[in-house]
Amino acid sequence: MVETVQWTADGVVLIDQTRLPREIEYVTCKTYQEVAVAIKDMIVRGAPAIGVTAAMGVALGMLHSDGADPDAEIERIIDTLARTRPTAVNLFWALDRMRVVYLSVKGRPITDIRQRLVDEAVLIKAEDIAINEAMGQHGAALVPNGRTVLTHCNAGALATAGYGTALGVIRAAVASGKQIDVFADETRPFLQGARLTAWELQQDGIPVTLITDNMAGHFMKTGRIGCVVVGADRIAANGDVANKIGTYSVAVLAKENGVPFYVAAPISTIDLKLASGDEIPIEERAASEVTRVGGVEVAPDGIAVANPAFDVTPHRYVTGIITERGVARAPYTESLATLVNQPAT
Amino acid sequence: MVETVQWTADGVVLIDQTRLPREIEYVTCKTYQEVAVAIKDMIVRGAPAIGVTAAMGVALGMLHSDGADPDAEIERIIDTLARTRPTAVNLFWALDRMRVVYLSVKGRPITDIRQRLVDEAVLIKAEDIAINEAMGQHGAALVPNGRTVLTHCNAGALATAGYGTALGVIRAAVASGKQIDVFADETRPFLQGARLTAWELQQDGIPVTLITDNMAGHFMKTGRIGCVVVGADRIAANGDVANKIGTYSVAVLAKENGVPFYVAAPISTIDLKLASGDEIPIEERAASEVTRVGGVEVAPDGIAVANPAFDVTPHRYVTGIITERGVARAPYTESLATLVNQPAT
Repeated sequence: MVETVQWTADGVVLIDQTRLPREIEYVTCKTYQEVAVAIKDMIVRGAPAIGVTAAMGVALGMLHSDGADPDAEIERIIDTLARTRPTAVNLFWALDRMRVVYLSVKGRPITDIRQRLVDEAVLIKAEDIAINEAMGQHGAALVPNGRTVLTHCNAGALATAGYGTALGVIRAAVASGKQIDVFADETRPFLQGARLTAWELQQDGIPVTLITDNMAGHFMKTGRIGCVVVGADRIAANGDVANKIGTYSVAVLAKENGVPFYVAAPISTIDLKLASGDEIPIEERAASEVTRVGGVEVAPDGIAVANPAFDVTPHRYVTGIITERGVARAPYTESLATLVNQPAT
Repeated sequence: MVETVQWTADGVVLIDQTRLPREIEYVTCKTYQEVAVAIKDMIVRGAPAIGVTAAMGVALGMLHSDGADPDAEIERIIDTLARTRPTAVNLFWALDRMRVVYLSVKGRPITDIRQRLVDEAVLIKAEDIAINEAMGQHGAALVPNGRTVLTHCNAGALATAGYGTALGVIRAAVASGKQIDVFADETRPFLQGARLTAWELQQDGIPVTLITDNMAGHFMKTGRIGCVVVGADRIAANGDVANKIGTYSVAVLAKENGVPFYVAAPISTIDLKLASGDEIPIEERAASEVTRVGGVEVAPDGIAVANPAFDVTPHRYVTGIITERGVARAPYTESLATLVNQPAT
């Protein structure tokens, strides 16, 4: 399996997710500004992976700062990284965590500060993998044996530091001996399902079938799908889930057909500051993502396009939220607060 | 506006719908076998357009037959054309109609038979346009003024002999003075929405916004969509509707969000021989339609793919079925039978 994000002596190394699976190419970001561009351009994507990458971006920025005014410098770095993508809360969570670490060593020699920030970024990455493995353990039991799991977008190793959230649950279910296969929505416009999920599962030898987004309902209606597992970009206090555009449709279709709909996400994705999903900002991306596929124009010139990158699934469609601390069930306002406030084990 | 299908001295002329909108190219089918290939390869597509083209294919085949054994020859031609695409009933309806005409002139001189078949094929085309205009008149009143109409796939001039079914309703609503705009689902894998519907409406100056299929639910949930209008490939006696893959999902999402869901289709699309949609055969098409977009491979090599070209929307999701004889409402078993058995006006 490839490494999604790595801290190296040369900088932050990312596998270029805009080119997978046809080309396996790594990009080295040598400055925090290059990290910000890589996040904005989706060279790295997926809420947890963005969080890890942004943390490394802060460390990288401070490593290259002159140390004259570290208070101002770290705020400039954090601000630049925060302006990349608005929806996934893990980005802001990671930046806040790096700021807290900085404040805890503020005033110490700049070399100490730099080392502490690098250590924290590397720790966030290591923790993310452990979190995903714990999530997998909690989630594996929910996956019905002998059935097909539907997933949307890519909530896999490529969306995280490794193992994956939704795909981590699938990997853990397979590891536990369950006989399952996966249907992967292609996930237009960026094709994370076709390009990343299909490829990741193929590499692991987990049986996967690629479908277009508009086929998911048909396969739920005809009884093929045993459960749905997806990731999340932000979860509000009431359990409303922002995730890749199309998740809401999958959730409605799952409920209509009596198919359990699970969300797998780390505690860092839960934003208790937001009462409901209505408050989650939804990123609008470029029209060219819709009109162009693999560099080929498919639509007429000058066509108007809407391209919201995420949607919000109201909590009433969510069967359970799988975290590293256990599975939250409705009523989510209580269950999520309990999990968030519980000390990590 | 381009002509979808034309009867000419050289043969059946089709606009190549696999190349639109980037290239406007016409294909001349000089034999009935070429007509069959054009239908199978989706150079022409859309249930009513397939019906018209197949009728012309029968006429073309008999025009070029040696006339030695016309009974055998017409059955061979009809059989070849019938084996192209299984789901849209208009194909079989048109072939049956051509057989009935043949039987009515059977035994007459071959030149008379040929002329009668050519006349009938040309008549089927002219009728189709008139039918769509009548459908538009019945449907226009249902479209809420000042709102956005969502449509899926292409049920426009390009799916018919002209004017369109669902897009005919939209055109008639605009002609009646209603201020509406259209959201067009791109309709993977063949991209009929992005390539054909967006282009048709753009040509007509009707405001249209292109979205990916998985965005439709989001825009219904956020209140943007006033109604949905789609076409149909086959409608069972109970009102179950087979249409382009993804239609079922749109219908479920419409119901969930209180958005009216209308189907616009000619009487020839209604198949009273089938009690329910469960009996409608669903065509499975090539994996390459999903893995390749505009000639570019997007998925990993060797990936498994499912590619059902249609799905079935149960009648309970259908607000009304707009035909050239009026609008059928639930209970459909009664309303559809009444419309089908009513003499054409």
